[in-house]
Amino acid sequence: MRFSQLITALNQGESGLQAHNLSNDPEIINGASLDKAKPHHLTFLEKGNALASDLKKSNAGAVLLPPDEILCDIAKQSGQAWALLKNPRLAFAEALELLNPRKVPEPGIHPSATIGDDVELGEIVSIGPNVCIGKGSKVGNGSILHPGVVIYEKVLIGEGCELHANSVVHPGSIIGNCCIVHSNAVIGSEGFGFVPTELGWRKMPQTGSVILENDVEIGCSSTVDRPAVGETTIGAGTKIDNLVQIGHGVVTGKGCAMAAQVGIAGGAKIGDGVILAGQVGVANRVKVGDRVIASSKCGIHTDIEPGQVISGFPAIPNKLWLRCSANFKKLPDFAKSIRELNRDSSN
Amino acid sequence: MRFSQLITALNQGESGLQAHNLSNDPEIINGASLDKAKPHHLTFLEKGNALASDLKKSNAGAVLLPPDEILCDIAKQSGQAWALLKNPRLAFAEALELLNPRKVPEPGIHPSATIGDDVELGEIVSIGPNVCIGKGSKVGNGSILHPGVVIYEKVLIGEGCELHANSVVHPGSIIGNCCIVHSNAVIGSEGFGFVPTELGWRKMPQTGSVILENDVEIGCSSTVDRPAVGETTIGAGTKIDNLVQIGHGVVTGKGCAMAAQVGIAGGAKIGDGVILAGQVGVANRVKVGDRVIASSKCGIHTDIEPGQVISGFPAIPNKLWLRCSANFKKLPDFAKSIRELNRDSSN
Amino acid sequence: MRFSQLITALNQGESGLQAHNLSNDPEIINGASLDKAKPHHLTFLEKGNALASDLKKSNAGAVLLPPDEILCDIAKQSGQAWALLKNPRLAFAEALELLNPRKVPEPGIHPSATIGDDVELGEIVSIGPNVCIGKGSKVGNGSILHPGVVIYEKVLIGEGCELHANSVVHPGSIIGNCCIVHSNAVIGSEGFGFVPTELGWRKMPQTGSVILENDVEIGCSSTVDRPAVGETTIGAGTKIDNLVQIGHGVVTGKGCAMAAQVGIAGGAKIGDGVILAGQVGVANRVKVGDRVIASSKCGIHTDIEPGQVISGFPAIPNKLWLRCSANFKKLPDFAKSIRELNRDSSN
Repeated sequence: MRFSQLITALNQGESGLQAHNLSNDPEIINGASLDKAKPHHLTFLEKGNALASDLKKSNAGAVLLPPDEILCDIAKQSGQAWALLKNPRLAFAEALELLNPRKVPEPGIHPSATIGDDVELGEIVSIGPNVCIGKGSKVGNGSILHPGVVIYEKVLIGEGCELHANSVVHPGSIIGNCCIVHSNAVIGSEGFGFVPTELGWRKMPQTGSVILENDVEIGCSSTVDRPAVGETTIGAGTKIDNLVQIGHGVVTGKGCAMAAQVGIAGGAKIGDGVILAGQVGVANRVKVGDRVIASSKCGIHTDIEPGQVISGFPAIPNKLWLRCSANFKKLPDFAKSIRELNRDSSN
Repeated sequence: MRFSQLITALNQGESGLQAHNLSNDPEIINGASLDKAKPHHLTFLEKGNALASDLKKSNAGAVLLPPDEILCDIAKQSGQAWALLKNPRLAFAEALELLNPRKVPEPGIHPSATIGDDVELGEIVSIGPNVCIGKGSKVGNGSILHPGVVIYEKVLIGEGCELHANSVVHPGSIIGNCCIVHSNAVIGSEGFGFVPTELGWRKMPQTGSVILENDVEIGCSSTVDRPAVGETTIGAGTKIDNLVQIGHGVVTGKGCAMAAQVGIAGGAKIGDGVILAGQVGVANRVKVGDRVIASSKCGIHTDIEPGQVISGFPAIPNKLWLRCSANFKKLPDFAKSIRELNRDSSN
Repeated sequence: MRFSQLITALNQGESGLQAHNLSNDPEIINGASLDKAKPHHLTFLEKGNALASDLKKSNAGAVLLPPDEILCDIAKQSGQAWALLKNPRLAFAEALELLNPRKVPEPGIHPSATIGDDVELGEIVSIGPNVCIGKGSKVGNGSILHPGVVIYEKVLIGEGCELHANSVVHPGSIIGNCCIVHSNAVIGSEGFGFVPTELGWRKMPQTGSVILENDVEIGCSSTVDRPAVGETTIGAGTKIDNLVQIGHGVVTGKGCAMAAQVGIAGGAKIGDGVILAGQVGVANRVKVGDRVIASSKCGIHTDIEPGQVISGFPAIPNKLWLRCSANFKKLPDFAKSIRELNRDSSN
């Protein structure tokens, strides 16, 4: 694709094209990082994330830039094609999409699939080899089930969904439109609920269900459990990375992002736009306010007010945590000082 | 089901029915939480876990209560049906089971299943689509293998087990009676054992096996590894949540509970009735005594005496940890005080 | 197998046989740990890892010993067969391999497998039941795909690989020779890349690929993501345990070992021979030098120099961390001392 064609497309996108220079209008075959890009590659820069010198050395055929005069001058001098955009990262996403049109399996039902009674399949669905769909389940128009996906009974899957290989959806789960469930993820499995008795742990039946609202994404090998009663709900547009545990009865808001290996215990309520970094843990029934950001490995044991940036275990405000952590390293010195001060003071 | 029928059943259960009031003997169709319950729902309260005011506002048709006069009075005034029980949570579990009879797949072997030579299948087993059972394995009476389950060779599975979709059991594993293996769990995979050599990591062959005793439950995507020699054993009645790692040669006692994302390294010995909260880690060969409780994210690096409640990393007694953590936040203040004291003392 | 046959084999191995005593040349059927070994078992000891008294009490038929006079004397007195080796652990690995010849499935393609167009299969491959191989993929000589494995399109798998049940490999992934992918692992899934926009998270297309170099091993339910552009690369001979997350664009060196539940965020660069213990986290784009060792639960947020041994969160040198952690327990005492010193000083 010529750079000029990309510019035409970006002009119709959301990334805020402000100016551009076609130079020799290079043929662009894909995107690449600044340091690895070659003359047929597109790359991008954001404000403050690279030195001007990296741009000078880049062999990229074309570069998407933020509205920054210095970077723009460098690009001009290099003879590269360039575009100036309000949001060059978004432009790069749009360009990658154009350069790599999504490949989808052919519509149809593979003969090795097992479709239960009373299953309703939408139009142009793609049901791969060895897929099983349980009794009374429904798959909406345009949805894709890759090989080995297992859908239990009475599951509702919306339109335009993609369920990757060997993922599993348990009975009664409701998956909205345009959701993506990655390979080996498990939706709607039994929550971890037991009653201690003299004879040991007695299972609390998990009769509730899981709801994924529209545009939700669940990462590989992540697990979203259903509760004893009621629902576990993942809010619209929430994106969940790999190996994440969502406990029974958790409710997340809209537009959250949860990085890999996050664990949210049963009954926690997560607000809108919350960002949890890798390996964060949230305790049972805790309420995390809207737009909270928790840094990696944070352990959240108590309710958190909206908008807080938190770190550590137990979680405290990030700025305080940074100062405390810096002092943690000095504990042996503190101990020595206190010993000496105590000795002096007792003299 | 009428509330009176539930009362009859609870009277034969283990939850200690002490008194009840049928009121208008409502038709109960399922359980619900106190705040969401409607007139055809049953709900429950435990001592101290909710305010009396919540009960006043509840629309539940019937409520299971602990032996508490105030709560009982409120229920009486509301006109709700109620029952007084020694263990209302257990009663709720029993009621949910009655209201939601377990649905099991039809017995039989799906034609798409692949059954190896010398496999022994018990009576009324249910072998789902695309299940594979390797040579010489055995599945006991009444066990259920959901779609996509893979059993390698020489695996013994007891009676009344349920293996959920796409779970995998490796050679030589022994699974007792009434065990549940959740979707995508892996039992009996090779332990992570390598010998460092000048040519790199050399695999230590993992020739041992995994034993799940009776009534064990293994969560979704959890992994239980087999050792180089000997056995990895999960004690009877132990319940393991999702995404848990059990290393090679680990032995757990009976009736333990391990929450999501716990990791137990090779050779650790866990006592009876141990409770490990989410994201806890246990180091190689550590011994954790009976009835130890470790709070979330705890890192256990040394042997722990029976009955201890521990927290933190490295793990220390919970009460001490709470005090230490409270002081961690004050480290910048401590630093300032020590600086000032040192300055004063040197003047 | 007679002990004398084992000795002959070990003599041709890499473990440095120095001396031996056949005693009554016992028949050895397998290995066992020192405490559980019986007369037909082989066991081993390493320098410093067991008390001489344990060897005295062992019923093992034969024992592999390090070059240690005291241990050797004990073995002589016991009448056990023994061998003295430079590396008894390596010898034990070699012996276990001899005693437990690897069982591999019969070569051939199971009739229930689904093989796409333009797939190239090497000689003597074994393709199990319900395996799916996508269009244009290639599987090298001698590779084994266990039941339920799903290979997407344009995947290259080298020679002598073993992919365990229900593992999944996404489009464009390149797997070298002699790699092992354990059950339910996912290779080449989409990285967690999104652009924040006013309309929510917009997916950054993940058009790159994953490369596993030769002799790499990926544990059960572990996930290795592909990046937006470029490659995620796991260096030759690197061994990865269960439930590990490797983010998009991560590059690891050769001969690393990563224990269970490690998480490495996008773009991190890990050197050669790095060892990460269980539940370690590495932040985005961090560089970890060659031969770094990070102890369990360590959180690595900044670049680490080669050869460091680190612990804690944020990571600091292990020896410092041990001293700091020991003082953490004394924080309540420190607080008290500081209060008293402040009071004294203000008097």
